[in-house]
Formats: sequence, C-alpha cells, structure tokens
Amino acid sequence: MKILWINPVGTAAFDEYIGDILKEGSRSGTKVDVVSLAEDRPKHLESHSYEAMVVADIVNITYQNNKKYDAIVIGCYYDVGLREAREVSGKAIVTAPCQSSLVYASFLGNSFSVLVGRRKWISKMEENVIGYGYGRGLCSMRPLGLGVHDFQADRDKTQARLLDEGRKAVEEDGAEVLILGCTIEYGFHETMQDKIGVPVIDAVIAPFKLAELMAETAEKFGWYPSRKWGSEPPSQKEIDEWGLFKEKESTYNYLTD
Amino acid sequence: MKILWINPVGTAAFDEYIGDILKEGSRSGTKVDVVSLAEDRPKHLESHSYEAMVVADIVNITYQNNKKYDAIVIGCYYDVGLREAREVSGKAIVTAPCQSSLVYASFLGNSFSVLVGRRKWISKMEENVIGYGYGRGLCSMRPLGLGVHDFQADRDKTQARLLDEGRKAVEEDGAEVLILGCTIEYGFHETMQDKIGVPVIDAVIAPFKLAELMAETAEKFGWYPSRKWGSEPPSQKEIDEWGLFKEKESTYNYLTD
Amino acid sequence: MKILWINPVGTAAFDEYIGDILKEGSRSGTKVDVVSLAEDRPKHLESHSYEAMVVADIVNITYQNNKKYDAIVIGCYYDVGLREAREVSGKAIVTAPCQSSLVYASFLGNSFSVLVGRRKWISKMEENVIGYGYGRGLCSMRPLGLGVHDFQADRDKTQARLLDEGRKAVEEDGAEVLILGCTIEYGFHETMQDKIGVPVIDAVIAPFKLAELMAETAEKFGWYPSRKWGSEPPSQKEIDEWGLFKEKESTYNYLTD
Amino acid sequence: MKILWINPVGTAAFDEYIGDILKEGSRSGTKVDVVSLAEDRPKHLESHSYEAMVVADIVNITYQNNKKYDAIVIGCYYDVGLREAREVSGKAIVTAPCQSSLVYASFLGNSFSVLVGRRKWISKMEENVIGYGYGRGLCSMRPLGLGVHDFQADRDKTQARLLDEGRKAVEEDGAEVLILGCTIEYGFHETMQDKIGVPVIDAVIAPFKLAELMAETAEKFGWYPSRKWGSEPPSQKEIDEWGLFKEKESTYNYLTD
Amino acid sequence: MKILWINPVGTAAFDEYIGDILKEGSRSGTKVDVVSLAEDRPKHLESHSYEAMVVADIVNITYQNNKKYDAIVIGCYYDVGLREAREVSGKAIVTAPCQSSLVYASFLGNSFSVLVGRRKWISKMEENVIGYGYGRGLCSMRPLGLGVHDFQADRDKTQARLLDEGRKAVEEDGAEVLILGCTIEYGFHETMQDKIGVPVIDAVIAPFKLAELMAETAEKFGWYPSRKWGSEPPSQKEIDEWGLFKEKESTYNYLTD
Amino acid sequence: MKILWINPVGTAAFDEYIGDILKEGSRSGTKVDVVSLAEDRPKHLESHSYEAMVVADIVNITYQNNKKYDAIVIGCYYDVGLREAREVSGKAIVTAPCQSSLVYASFLGNSFSVLVGRRKWISKMEENVIGYGYGRGLCSMRPLGLGVHDFQADRDKTQARLLDEGRKAVEEDGAEVLILGCTIEYGFHETMQDKIGVPVIDAVIAPFKLAELMAETAEKFGWYPSRKWGSEPPSQKEIDEWGLFKEKESTYNYLTD
Repeated sequence: MKILWINPVGTAAFDEYIGDILKEGSRSGTKVDVVSLAEDRPKHLESHSYEAMVVADIVNITYQNNKKYDAIVIGCYYDVGLREAREVSGKAIVTAPCQSSLVYASFLGNSFSVLVGRRKWISKMEENVIGYGYGRGLCSMRPLGLGVHDFQADRDKTQARLLDEGRKAVEEDGAEVLILGCTIEYGFHETMQDKIGVPVIDAVIAPFKLAELMAETAEKFGWYPSRKWGSEPPSQKEIDEWGLFKEKESTYNYLTD
Repeated sequence: MKILWINPVGTAAFDEYIGDILKEGSRSGTKVDVVSLAEDRPKHLESHSYEAMVVADIVNITYQNNKKYDAIVIGCYYDVGLREAREVSGKAIVTAPCQSSLVYASFLGNSFSVLVGRRKWISKMEENVIGYGYGRGLCSMRPLGLGVHDFQADRDKTQARLLDEGRKAVEEDGAEVLILGCTIEYGFHETMQDKIGVPVIDAVIAPFKLAELMAETAEKFGWYPSRKWGSEPPSQKEIDEWGLFKEKESTYNYLTD
Repeated sequence: MKILWINPVGTAAFDEYIGDILKEGSRSGTKVDVVSLAEDRPKHLESHSYEAMVVADIVNITYQNNKKYDAIVIGCYYDVGLREAREVSGKAIVTAPCQSSLVYASFLGNSFSVLVGRRKWISKMEENVIGYGYGRGLCSMRPLGLGVHDFQADRDKTQARLLDEGRKAVEEDGAEVLILGCTIEYGFHETMQDKIGVPVIDAVIAPFKLAELMAETAEKFGWYPSRKWGSEPPSQKEIDEWGLFKEKESTYNYLTD
Repeated sequence: MKILWINPVGTAAFDEYIGDILKEGSRSGTKVDVVSLAEDRPKHLESHSYEAMVVADIVNITYQNNKKYDAIVIGCYYDVGLREAREVSGKAIVTAPCQSSLVYASFLGNSFSVLVGRRKWISKMEENVIGYGYGRGLCSMRPLGLGVHDFQADRDKTQARLLDEGRKAVEEDGAEVLILGCTIEYGFHETMQDKIGVPVIDAVIAPFKLAELMAETAEKFGWYPSRKWGSEPPSQKEIDEWGLFKEKESTYNYLTD
Repeated sequence: MKILWINPVGTAAFDEYIGDILKEGSRSGTKVDVVSLAEDRPKHLESHSYEAMVVADIVNITYQNNKKYDAIVIGCYYDVGLREAREVSGKAIVTAPCQSSLVYASFLGNSFSVLVGRRKWISKMEENVIGYGYGRGLCSMRPLGLGVHDFQADRDKTQARLLDEGRKAVEEDGAEVLILGCTIEYGFHETMQDKIGVPVIDAVIAPFKLAELMAETAEKFGWYPSRKWGSEPPSQKEIDEWGLFKEKESTYNYLTD
Repeated sequence: MKILWINPVGTAAFDEYIGDILKEGSRSGTKVDVVSLAEDRPKHLESHSYEAMVVADIVNITYQNNKKYDAIVIGCYYDVGLREAREVSGKAIVTAPCQSSLVYASFLGNSFSVLVGRRKWISKMEENVIGYGYGRGLCSMRPLGLGVHDFQADRDKTQARLLDEGRKAVEEDGAEVLILGCTIEYGFHETMQDKIGVPVIDAVIAPFKLAELMAETAEKFGWYPSRKWGSEPPSQKEIDEWGLFKEKESTYNYLTD
C-alpha cells in the first residue's frame, strides 16, 4: 500500500519529521511519501488567503498521483481542498485531519475539545466541525496563542501551553477527548495523555491511519470513492482540451520512502 | 490482535457465516471470535422490546471480555447497547454498524441512503443517524419489506429487492453511497456495487474494520476509550458488592477462531 | 384509574416514599402501585451499564401489566427503556421523567436548567433533552456532586446544594424554570420555589401527572399509543414461541395501594 | 377549577359547540367559559394580518381574567399571542393548540403529520412546530383545501378529505400520529381513529386538557408560570399610568358555564 | 422613492431624531416619513404584551400606505408584526431591524453579538436570531441594564455601558461584529467603531438602507414581495365586508418629509 | 462608487454581457468594471477541482484591487473563495451570488427553490445554503440538465426548462421565491416573473446590488468588513517577505467602464 502525505506549504521543513512519524505509525507493508510545495507558496496556512494559494497545488498533486497512491492525505487541519481533491482522486482515498480526528473523538468519548494555535483559526475550524456533523460534541476550541512555526520551535513552551489548555478543556469545558488542531502540533499527544488522562488525538496520525484503513478496504471490498452526483469528476475531455492539472511534477518536493 | 463479534441474538445460525466473512476480511494477524446468546433470547432484534432483552448480555459479554479482546463489535444495526457496553469495555474498543458505516459513507461521498428491512426500523435508525450527526447527508431510508431472517433465506429475492431500492435511492433520492442497514444483509455489497456503480457499505465489515483500526491505534498511540465524565465506568466496589456482570460465560455460545 | 410506578432498581428503599408522594399528588380516584426489582439488580442507575441490567425488567413489567394499569411510569431521569417499554404497553400510556419535565418547563417558561447529581450524568441527559427537541431552551445542566443515595441521606446538605446551584442556574445561566434531574431528588421543590422564586419541576410528580392525564384522555378520547411503523409491537406469535417477557411476577416487589 | 377558552374571532358561531365539547371532555369539577370577540374582528384567522387584529384582545382578556380563571386557552392553531398572553397571565396557565397537540403526538408515537386547511397556513405552522422543537418528528403538513368556515359547513366533505389526507399522511409520509391543525376541525377525530387506526389529536381537546392538568398542578405543587427573565410581566405602574389592558369587558362575548 | 418608518409606540418623542438620521443617511431622491401611534399606546415595547397592543396598528398603517410608499420599516428590534405587515404590504417592501442587522453582520464578519437593553429582551430576540437562521454566528446577547427610555436620557452613561459590554462581547465572547439591539440605541455606533475597532450595526440605519435597496430593486427588476402560499394576502372581499384595516389615518402621527 | 465584478473563469465570453447588465442595473454614479482570468483557467466552474484552479486568482485580484474599488463581486454561485477573498479585501466589501440571493429570498417570501444547472452542483450549493443559515426555507434545488455554457447558447430551450422547473418548484415544492442558481442564467428572470408570478432572483443582479449597498454604507457609516478574529488579514510582513498575491495584473482581462 502506498500513501502520499501532502504538506501543503512552501517549505519542506516538516517533511522529514512527519515522514518519520508516519513510517513509525504505519502498518508493515505501507509505503509513505511526503510532498511539499514550491518555495513561493506560503510557509503556513493560518490565513485563509494563504489556503487559497495552495488549493490548486493540492488538486494538481492529487490528480497526478491518483494512480500511484492508494490514499492521499491533506496535511492541514483546515482540511483545505478536501472536496476539491476528492473529486479528482479517481480510486484513491483522500483524507484530512479535522474530519479524521472527529471520527476518533466520536468513537472514544462523548465530547471533545480542539486545541488550536490562534483564535483566528476558530471561526473556520468550528464551521468545519459543525459541517461534518459533530457540533453537538464540541465542548470548546481553545487557542494556545501560538502559530504554526512556534509549536516545534520551543517545545517546552508548547507542551506547557497544551497541558494547561488541555486540562481546562477537560475540567472546565467537559471534554472527554482532546484533539490537537494543527498537524504541526505533532509529538505531544503521548505526554499529554499521560498527564491529563484522556485520549489526545494527533492531527498527523489520525488522517493517516484512516487513509490506510480506507485504502485497504477500497481494494478488499471495492469501497472506492463514489463518483456519482456531487462526487462526479470533471470530464477528461475538458481537462485535456483546457490543459488542466498539468503543473510540472518537479514543482513539488517529493520525499520518497 | 483479537476481536470479538457479538451476534446479540438467541441463535447461532449466523455465527459461522459472519465469522467467515470477518476472517476473510481481516488483516493478517487478527484473530476473530464470534459469540451469540442463549436460546431463550430473541432470534432477531427487529422490535425494540427484543433489544431490551439482550442489552444486559451485551454488557456482560463486554465486561467479561474487555481484557481478552482488543476490540468488541456489537452486531446489530440499531447499535444496541453501544453506550452501555463502551462504559465497561476498559481498554477495549467497542464499535457498532450504524456509527461505523456512517464514517465510510462520509469519507466516500456527500450523501447516502440506508436500505433497511422494514419501515418499522426506520424510526430508531433515523434517530441514530441524526444523533451521530449525519442527518444532513441522509437522502432516504428505504425499506425492503423483508425481515432479518428473510435476507439469507431467499438470496435471489433479497438481491433483486436491494438492487431495486438501491437504484431508486441513487437515482431518485440522490444518494452517492448506499448502506446496508442490517448485519444480516451480508454478502450482497459486491454485486450491488458492480450493478449500481456506487460504493455499498456492508454492515458487518464496516464496524469490524473500524474495530481493527482502533484496536491497532489504541495500542500504538494510546488511543484507548476515554474514562472521563460520561465515559466514566461504574465503581468496581459496587460491581463486586452487588454481584453485577456475573452471568456465567457458558451462557453464551463462543465460536473461537 | 390505575397507575404503576416502576422504580427500576434492586432496592425497595424508595418505594414507600414515592408511593406516598404519588398518592398525595394524585387526583381522587387514581390508584397507584409501585414496583421495584429483584435484589440482584443495581441499587441505582448512575452508570449506563447499570441501566442495561434493568431494561429487560422494565419491558417485562410493562408487558405483564399493560392490561392491569392505564399508565406506567418509568422512575429514572435517564428515561431508561422508554422506547422499548412503549412498544409493548398495548393501550397503556408510558411516561418518564425527563420527557415529562420538559413539557412542564416549556409551558411555564422560555428556558430551563436541570440540576443533576453528577457530571457523569450530563452526557446522556443532555442528549435526551436535545433528542426530545428541547435543546434550545436548555441553559445548563448543573451537577450537585451528589449520588442517588446521597439525596435523601443528608437532606440538609442536599437542600443547600440545590439552592446554591439552582440560584446560579437562574442568575448566571438565565434559567426561568428549574428541573430536578433525578427521581430521588424528591421532596425539595417546594422550598426551592419559595426561596428562588421560579417553578421547580419535581421528577416524580411530572411524569406521574402526565401519565394520569394521558390515561384519562386515552379512555375518553381514544388517544391510546400509536401502533404504527416504529410503534408497532412485536408479533404475539414470536413472543409465545420464544417464551419472551415471561419473567415471574414474583421476581418484582409490588407495593400495592 | 375554572378555565376560559378564547375563540379569538369576531363571531360567536363556534362558542356553544366548543363549550359543549369542553364540558363533555372536562373532569368533574371543572367549570368552562368561552369568550369570543367583538363583531368588527375578523371571523377567522387564516391570514396573519387577521391575527394581528386580535392579539390585543387576547392579551386584554388574559390580563382581565388572570385571577378569575386557573387557566386560559387560546383557541387558534397558529397559537396566536401565546407568548404575549403568557406574560400577563399572572398565576393562570395559558395553553394553545399547536404546542399542546405536539405534546400528545410525542407521547403517543415517534412521528406525526398535521392536517391543515390550506397551503397558506403551512409556512407559519411549520415554523411553530420547529420552534417548539418538534421538527424532527414532522412527516408532513397536508392541506385539505378547506377554510375555517368550511369544516363544519359540509361535514361529510370535510370527513372525506380528512380521511383521504390522513391515510396518505400515514401510509405515504410515515406518520404514526395525526394532528388536526385547526380548532374548527372538531368532531372528527373519533371516526378518523376508527377508520385509520392511529391516534388523531383534536386541536380543541388537547390544549384544554393540558390547561386542566397544569391548573391542577399549579395549585397543588406551586407550578405557576415563571415570572423571571423573558417571562417577566410588565410593570403595574406603567400599565396603570398608560391605561393599558383596559378594554371594556362588555366588548367580549362571554358564554358562561 | 418614498419610505415610511413606523415608530410603533404611543409617543412621538423619537420621531424627529429618527427622521433626521434617516434623511441624513438616505440616498439623494429618497423621501422619508415617520409615523408613530396614538397616545394610548405603550410608550415602549419592552414587554411582549405591549407589542400585542401595537401589532394591529402596524398592519393598519402598512395596509393603508402600501401604495403611497415603496418601502415601510417597522422600528422595533423585536421585528414586531413583520410577518403580519408583509402580508398586506402589496408591492411595498417591509423590513425590520433584527433581520436587517443580521444581513450586515453576516456580510461583514463571521460572528456577532447583540447589545440589548435588558435580560428580559433576550429570550425573544434570541429566538428571532435563530429563527432567521443566524444562530451559529451568535456569540452573545449582552444586556446593558438600561431601558428604551434610558438610552438617550443619559447618553454618557449609555455610551460607557455600550463600550464596556461591546468590548467584552468582542474580547471574551469572540464577536467580530456588534449589533445595537434597539432602535433607540441610535447615535452611538460611530464612537463605538472608533474605540472598539469592529463594525457596529445601528438598528435604525440597517433596516432603512435595506428598505431603500429593496424598494429600488423592486421597481427596477420586479422583485416585489411574493404573494404565493404563506405570503398570500387576505381576500379583498373579506377585508371590505368585515371593514378591516380601517383605522382612521388621523389616529397616527405622521411626520412628513 | 467603483465596483469590480470577477468572472472567475478563463474566458472573457460573458464579460460584456454581464458588464452591460450591471451598468443598466446600477445606480447613477456607480462605475462597474469586469475582470476575467487567463486563458489557461477553466472555462466554467461546474467541477470543484475547477474552482480550485481559480481561488488564488480571486484572492490575488481582490488583494490588488482592494483600494481601487469599493466593492468586489465574485461571479459564481458556488460563492467560490468568498471567505478567502474577504480576508484580504481591506476596506472593500466582497459579495457573492448565493449568500446575496438568499437575502432577497428571505425578505420577499417564506421559502424558496434554487434552479441549478446540473444535479452535480446540488451537493455543494445545498451545503452553502445550510451553512449560511437558510436551510429551513429551502424547498428544493431543481436541476435543469444544462451546463454553464448551455444557458445562453439556446435561450429558448433554457427558458422553457426554467419555466418548467420553476413552476414545479412553486406548485409542487412550495417555493414562494425562485433563485437562479448560476450567474450565466442571466436574462431570464423577467419573463419568468411574468409567467410564474413569483419573484425570481437573478444571480448577477443580487450580489451586485448588495455590493453597491454595502459600499455605500461602508463609506457613510463606517461599516467596513471586520478585521477581528476569523476576519483578521494576513500580516503584511509575511506577504512581502514571501512575495504573495503578486500575480501580474496583466494576467487578468479587465473590461473597464
């Protein structure tokens, strides 16, 4: 099984770390590649206008790789481009962190909180949670006051903030499960689980493991993405005539397993 | 990894068939056992009062096996006893068909229909779908006019009915994904997929594969069920003093791998 | 008119008290019996797995008494087994505390809070309130930090806690009506009303009085429970063949008027 | 116990009939009066601008009678003026047909349809059903193509239409309970129940019986309307200074028991 | 273009001020008249029973003026009589503050808070916000502890309270936009915007400007109010026969431009 | 006042037509420019992956023009890039067809249907309608079986289809208002209104007129877009350092007034 993780940002800084986490967390036999974008792309996606700069890349990458990989993961907790990428993924499964972490939260407890970087993020993330149907279980979205590039820069500080807000989410807001609301909040969930005593869902692992599962069940049981109604792909004739999704592969930085 | 499938009915008639499906569908290394209930239990759960007769069994079995198995699956599309069993499952994951099939439907398409046996079933099943948060994507619940024991008794008729209602669900109601709304509707999803052209989620396989996934991630990442607030288990002291969950294991029919 | 109150626990400790409250609160001509369960049943239902141990009893009692009583009340604020019991109640009305108290709250004010025993209870009770359609009016569920057996053990303490949390529910959370979220919180509503100045709905009286009303209107106007679709009862043939709902009556402790 | 039924229209044509139904349906000891409005008021309330012409009357009557009656019923299925009348009802209970019939529907089945006079009515009535929290159970609102003054004018025709649409609501739309969506659809529910086999809630009886219940429990248990927050009444000082709610009693046609 | 502003209270005290605001805020070519009610009407509408006293006036004024004005604005943040007036407005547009301010809030930000006079008001206003579909964006309704007649009586105090609660709404509750929840909170939005730094929607200007827009587009594009189904007007024959909507014009105080 | 209409497709085919409609529909003094995208962009946006190809352009154009125009309109009924463009619009208002047409529908009637090109479109458009809060009023989304480039190619056929589905939406589905669910369905609303008799909202005019209104009120009353929380723009420092939003203006086809 082959899975592609997209870091939809114009920096390869996180590719190796995330690649290592995925390899360590994968089943035997799963091969994981990571791809990030050209340098002229935003280095993080905290702003929605930055997301706008990378959606085409996510779709291009998905289209170009939909036969090479069994599943593709969009590595941003805004789940940016999920609907758009799924449309052109052919038989490949596409997953994303927010939707996937909510599956875990709903199987492991009755309620959850999301620990996000900044208040800025809450508006869209809350809309996503409600859009996916999980609004009832949402206790709170607690901002850490940290940006994407802060999380790994000063890990002690990040951990302290996560523990502090995580405890409040559990004790004050009533969360039974915690979700880390950014893929770059990786590497903290174990300590948090030990100290707080509730499951803490990592935004890298959750969508990856669901991708792995769904890639397996696609092949075994034919549970490929629907291609009906809203999931209908664009016509190949138009794609060819208009020259769409042709961005050179070399534009993207592939880190292959 | 060890998984226990509960057929929460007073007949072992389906145990072998389901056991075989699970074994064939499992990852290498997964061991699957099946258990069904004593003969004085209802032979199906189409009536809610019948469900009432087996909830205690589901909880007893879960409590007694929560250290022997990594995950336990409740084999009824009403998801009977899911909250109750999860409370006493310790570190074992508990899954059930309705919640699990909805995860598949939401990852593979924008909308879905459920093909149920009788109109009788719709009221509670619809409430479950809405309760899990997936009401927006529900196009229809279409009854086949068949009971639990009819599905495998005349497979040709069942298949004809499934194809007929499945096509209507897609073409008239707008479903992008179909769900088979009873565990005993097993063995039909592949033909349906071939003929109708949309993914058809089987109610046996879906909760089993999610159980397998979540058992793996529990062990690997510590994502065990929350034991906080609403997920808090009963006190061991009370259980012991009151002699709860002590039903003799021999009451149940275990079919071990 | 004859009404049966089910105390669905393995203790008769509360039967007389509740019987007395009901008799005092009944219309002239209403006869009230109380039944509790065998000693091997849980002594309270704070845990959902405990509920699982008594659902069959609730259904058995309902089935066996549906011609002897005009209405049956399930005496637990989780409304445990309500759907299941209603299915086999024949022409008898079945009511339960949560649904009934919400009727009162919605007729007497625009918003309400529920004073529950422990945070543990909130998850399911909130789901029930939302499921019944009253989510919009719910200001808060405030836990008292007391268990079912504490409420009457130290009545002064209970009353102090109820007044404290009740006042906060009104003043801070905006509740116009208070609901006591456990049948064993009986005997406090009058003092609370005097001191806090809003209606305080008792979880014993509310479902009983609605049972009394609906039993009257069933007879007078033919408003018996629907037996269509989701309310269809199981087939008598199956019940007989499978020997269901046959638990010996002597298993249960009837306190007759 | 004394209950006042308001026919909020400028005709006394229905007063006697409704008075008789109420007397026949009341408990022993209940005294029922009926009041209708001055002749210059609309003769029916099918239009919302007509409702606007009578809201002041409903409030005036409620204010002037809130010490003379234990409960007051607003006799229009739009529940016109319910919030406004409740504000000035003092210790008297105020009920109305839509809210009350929904209580019955939700206790007697899982789903319901409302049989209304004209499509015109549906928009506001549906909004009310959703506003009260019962949207999930609503299968359909089926118009009969009849106006308020048609229902009793040609009873055979009305009955035929009710049976026809009622059957469709049950068989096609899935309703387990039927509600008659106008107080002037009185006198049909019994035949409908006999012929269709599901409970049929009459819009006169339902709010009256709930008024009777709540008047009883107000006195017995102190469950009077909340007077807090949104239920706070206007200041008596202002009422007096501004001369409000002073409409002469003789303006209204009281039919006393 | 001619627009009529209704001050639905029994005092002309605010007519000139509001008239001036409207004239200053109008497009060139727009003519604005203001009308208020007879002296025996309530001087404010904080109580719902007071609203009941003026709904007929609002409908009468709308009916009598629906050919003289292109649009009519109901000047109370409860949006009192909006459905009723729209029914008889013919080709004239009818707008009201709550619905209109929500349009602004949803175009200018993701979330909003409403600054209301008293807690009393919140229950109905919140119901309106939810009824219009904007519940998701509502962060809070913060009461100022001031009545309608306080706002302009001590403007310094009002401004201090508005700034205080407005800042809390933004900083604590997460509002991106503020709405002034009473038409008599006029004259404060500019200072608030300067000091708090978010858009502050004035309840006089918002419905007026939408009225102006919709009057323009009615004429230009034929976008007049629907007269179908729930928007169907009453029959002219009935209106004439029953003598409805005939209140003498001289009853009302018109302040013409 | 200056307004920019973005035709977010790689063809200028519709620019003049839409420009003319806007000029004819504008107030005196409004200047309207139209811009479309480079030829390598998709010629329509029926597929979500096509939307992904143009979001960056929409954001670039918005960023580059936010001081030159008072308002910017995104000309696609998917409202593609609305959140993203609003973030970088500075003081300029950004509107889009779906959100704007819903404002009209909600002011002109109680319910509405949307006439879309293909079933494919419904999934996302319905999600948008629900996301904006207007789900309750949505009667139906009826597909015409026509693509974006068909609407103007055979206008007789389009009109016939629109009349046919529009009538069904009104008569069968209960719509009081119709919305044309594509900007290229321009030029039909007047005939439809004449023939069907309900308001028909054009997807070009609605967002343009709201843009015009909000540009006016921004300047007059300071009602500029919020820049707080979720509406906070990206940091200028990052934009400059990373060279974002710098696409050459000459890439885009501006049709200036």
